[in-house]
Amino acid sequence: MRMHSLYDVYVRNDNVSKDTIALMEGDETCTFHELHTSVLHAAEFLSKRGVARGDRVAILSMNRLEFFILLGALARLGAIMVPLNWRLSLGELVYIIGDCLPKCLFTDAKHSEIAKKIQQKCPVEINDINELRLKEQTDATRYSASDSEAVLAVADTPLCIIYTAAVEGHPRGAVLSHSNLIAASLQVITSMGLSAKDVNLNMLPLFHITGLNLALAVMQVGGRNVIIEKFDEQKVLEITTSEKVTLWGSFPPILTRCMAEFTGGNYDISSLKYVVGLDGPEMISSFEEKVDAKFWILYGQSETSGFVTFSEASKKLGSAGQQGCLVTFCLLDEYGVTVKTGETGEIAVRGPLVFQGYWNLEAVNEKTFRQGWHHTGDLGQLDTNGYLYFKGRKPEKELIKPGGENVYPAEVETVILEHKGVKAVCVIGVPDPKFGEGIKAVCVLNAGVELEKKELIEFVAGRIARYKKPQYVEFVASLPQQNEMIDRNKVKELWG
Amino acid sequence: MRMHSLYDVYVRNDNVSKDTIALMEGDETCTFHELHTSVLHAAEFLSKRGVARGDRVAILSMNRLEFFILLGALARLGAIMVPLNWRLSLGELVYIIGDCLPKCLFTDAKHSEIAKKIQQKCPVEINDINELRLKEQTDATRYSASDSEAVLAVADTPLCIIYTAAVEGHPRGAVLSHSNLIAASLQVITSMGLSAKDVNLNMLPLFHITGLNLALAVMQVGGRNVIIEKFDEQKVLEITTSEKVTLWGSFPPILTRCMAEFTGGNYDISSLKYVVGLDGPEMISSFEEKVDAKFWILYGQSETSGFVTFSEASKKLGSAGQQGCLVTFCLLDEYGVTVKTGETGEIAVRGPLVFQGYWNLEAVNEKTFRQGWHHTGDLGQLDTNGYLYFKGRKPEKELIKPGGENVYPAEVETVILEHKGVKAVCVIGVPDPKFGEGIKAVCVLNAGVELEKKELIEFVAGRIARYKKPQYVEFVASLPQQNEMIDRNKVKELWG
Repeated sequence: MRMHSLYDVYVRNDNVSKDTIALMEGDETCTFHELHTSVLHAAEFLSKRGVARGDRVAILSMNRLEFFILLGALARLGAIMVPLNWRLSLGELVYIIGDCLPKCLFTDAKHSEIAKKIQQKCPVEINDINELRLKEQTDATRYSASDSEAVLAVADTPLCIIYTAAVEGHPRGAVLSHSNLIAASLQVITSMGLSAKDVNLNMLPLFHITGLNLALAVMQVGGRNVIIEKFDEQKVLEITTSEKVTLWGSFPPILTRCMAEFTGGNYDISSLKYVVGLDGPEMISSFEEKVDAKFWILYGQSETSGFVTFSEASKKLGSAGQQGCLVTFCLLDEYGVTVKTGETGEIAVRGPLVFQGYWNLEAVNEKTFRQGWHHTGDLGQLDTNGYLYFKGRKPEKELIKPGGENVYPAEVETVILEHKGVKAVCVIGVPDPKFGEGIKAVCVLNAGVELEKKELIEFVAGRIARYKKPQYVEFVASLPQQNEMIDRNKVKELWG
Repeated sequence: MRMHSLYDVYVRNDNVSKDTIALMEGDETCTFHELHTSVLHAAEFLSKRGVARGDRVAILSMNRLEFFILLGALARLGAIMVPLNWRLSLGELVYIIGDCLPKCLFTDAKHSEIAKKIQQKCPVEINDINELRLKEQTDATRYSASDSEAVLAVADTPLCIIYTAAVEGHPRGAVLSHSNLIAASLQVITSMGLSAKDVNLNMLPLFHITGLNLALAVMQVGGRNVIIEKFDEQKVLEITTSEKVTLWGSFPPILTRCMAEFTGGNYDISSLKYVVGLDGPEMISSFEEKVDAKFWILYGQSETSGFVTFSEASKKLGSAGQQGCLVTFCLLDEYGVTVKTGETGEIAVRGPLVFQGYWNLEAVNEKTFRQGWHHTGDLGQLDTNGYLYFKGRKPEKELIKPGGENVYPAEVETVILEHKGVKAVCVIGVPDPKFGEGIKAVCVLNAGVELEKKELIEFVAGRIARYKKPQYVEFVASLPQQNEMIDRNKVKELWG
């Protein structure tokens, strides 16, 4: 009786605002009723291919309207979406497909080639995402009748796996349930006061939690999502002007590039009310001086279905905001004891937003979830007014975030060590004016080896996602050690 | 890890807006920090008296600030609040106390006498609600430290029992969980777009679901609750003027009486934005002409933690609104099959708002929850735009609603039949200009008996809550029968 699935959200929107436009992409629009009908069609398509409760279905595509159709259809079937980051390398994609073993993989035209290469390494049925669309509206009546076949989701029924946290070199699949995603939407709606009048410009990739969270929040409240393939400042400003967009998601360098374009161009973005994401205090202040909108700052991760802290940035510039309404967190020391106000501790989270665990990694989950808390691996400080300050990652969970992407030093180091000329390496994050954080590889070469920095960078870029390649390389005589391990903090001190 | 309790809501408000005023009563104010501190004090008080997880604690009091302290303390302990309707008779209160067996009963001064009488019939520890208050602010620091002793609530942990649904003569305790009440708040916040700027005037009794739901929604979003003992039109208008109240709950005759007082008086209620409740289309239209606020219409019951449908009334006057965002419902015929659009069926509900069942009534629960739906006993029709029209109760769940209270004919009939002069009776609802619905008893007297209508009314009033006494009595020669039962529909037809 207390079951509630994301599919129920699609049905309810059809019931209460069937003629309202839910999605736009280019010249195309899709009402909540058309969306529901397409979802029923897609569910039938999937069902005929054997997709049933608990099965995984992957999608490798630019942002597209079909993403929402596929998600709704999988929600109806009780199946699980695996949205893939199209910036990953073939090897990385093959790893993920091999890990979650999807029944099929949907791709857009741009990714059909790489999908075939994935298929050669790991058998998986490939489908064109256009198959998900209802071609004939005459056919639609067939789907209007009953929802009696929908699978009922309980609180923990998985709906989505987002690959992240490659702390040991390979990404882990964070399993999010129906109620994780619904609760994350409710938190965003209630914090920001979103309504059916809001229009979200889907420029963040939908395979990342922030893009997904904002899109689903606006959909849940009955607002409109305008979809663009990927970020492009000119398109963003044009569409914001023409569609009276109220909400952007933004990670560096999005805001900088948008404001540069805005300053020179002939745009009217006065409809904009909120920008949600990360950026430096100066950029945020300068943006809010020029545009009558609020920047919302946050701390969160895929494992928390979105935002742990979330506030208007101007309330405390430089902080990551205050506790969200559906989250409880504390800061723990090495012994699992809460630190004093003002001290740094690991951010540990509980509440309806905490994910269901990493896919097929029981031992890791036990450790992550010890003592009733999800241990994020992130460090933070709290001030006396409850504002969180992000203080980096725990050493063993080192993470670099160029432009909102997650890059784990271990991933990059593993690849660099495959180069025969390299004896030892330590990859660290360094301040970067464009992406907020940049990647630097500090290397020790084997005796007698001569290596161009550029050559090493290209070596990495050819093997993993290009955004993971170092922007900076430094060759050094030796790396500082502690307890027979490379001393990462010392490396940062010397070359960071 | 996914645990979230109503106590977490109190803690979060203390964390993010500690100096904001949460509660007001007369000249007294209480910030979110003071509220949390009082909750910790009250939890200690209760704990010392042996109140632990799963225990019931009853409260018999006018609306008071202490209600919120007690609720927070019980939430922290994992215990269960039983808020009692002070309009009930001694016999009814004794029945409830005997049914849920609370560890203790808190009363205000007005109810200490009746509490003693309850105690004589059913042993229960009595405490003054003033005990819940923190007397010395110097003492407060003692409570500021840790929340490590808080009981973690899972989705189904009970928090509240509301007695209702006396369809067979005795009320049943509807058990609501932490997540029921939190989800109900989220639904109200997201539907209405409530924010921390909202101010709710607590005039509806907190022992009823609508009063409780609105109060907790405003508290959850960080707004202010202004508490008055009970409804009084002059106080409502004075406080709305002085405290810039934005939200009222209202059942007949509240709005009529407020508007009559408003018309003659010197009040400024321009701060008012929403009135939530029930009233006739004419009253609603006339109110919205005079005041720049929206009336929100609803259908709901205690068993659904609040609202199943919920909309601005002016969107479809005469309807009960559209599906809430955390509810799924359908209309079922006698065979459990969904009726066609426009036809009447029993409203069946699922989703996070559905209660945990009636206290200690497993057989009833099995029937109520058959086939995965909560069967409300209420009848409704849907139009093609998803608006629900309330069509009364199923015959076996007959209910009369004078002024927002629930009166079950069976309760009144049982009492009337205790009168020696009465041979047979059928109690029905009739239109009433003041309370929306009135109570009429159609009686057959024993041969030779002479009875004054007024005498019979007072006989009932002395035995059950006064609001359950008939306003109208009619003596008839015989009552129509069908299948050896009184034909209630025929009685309504003839004397309704």
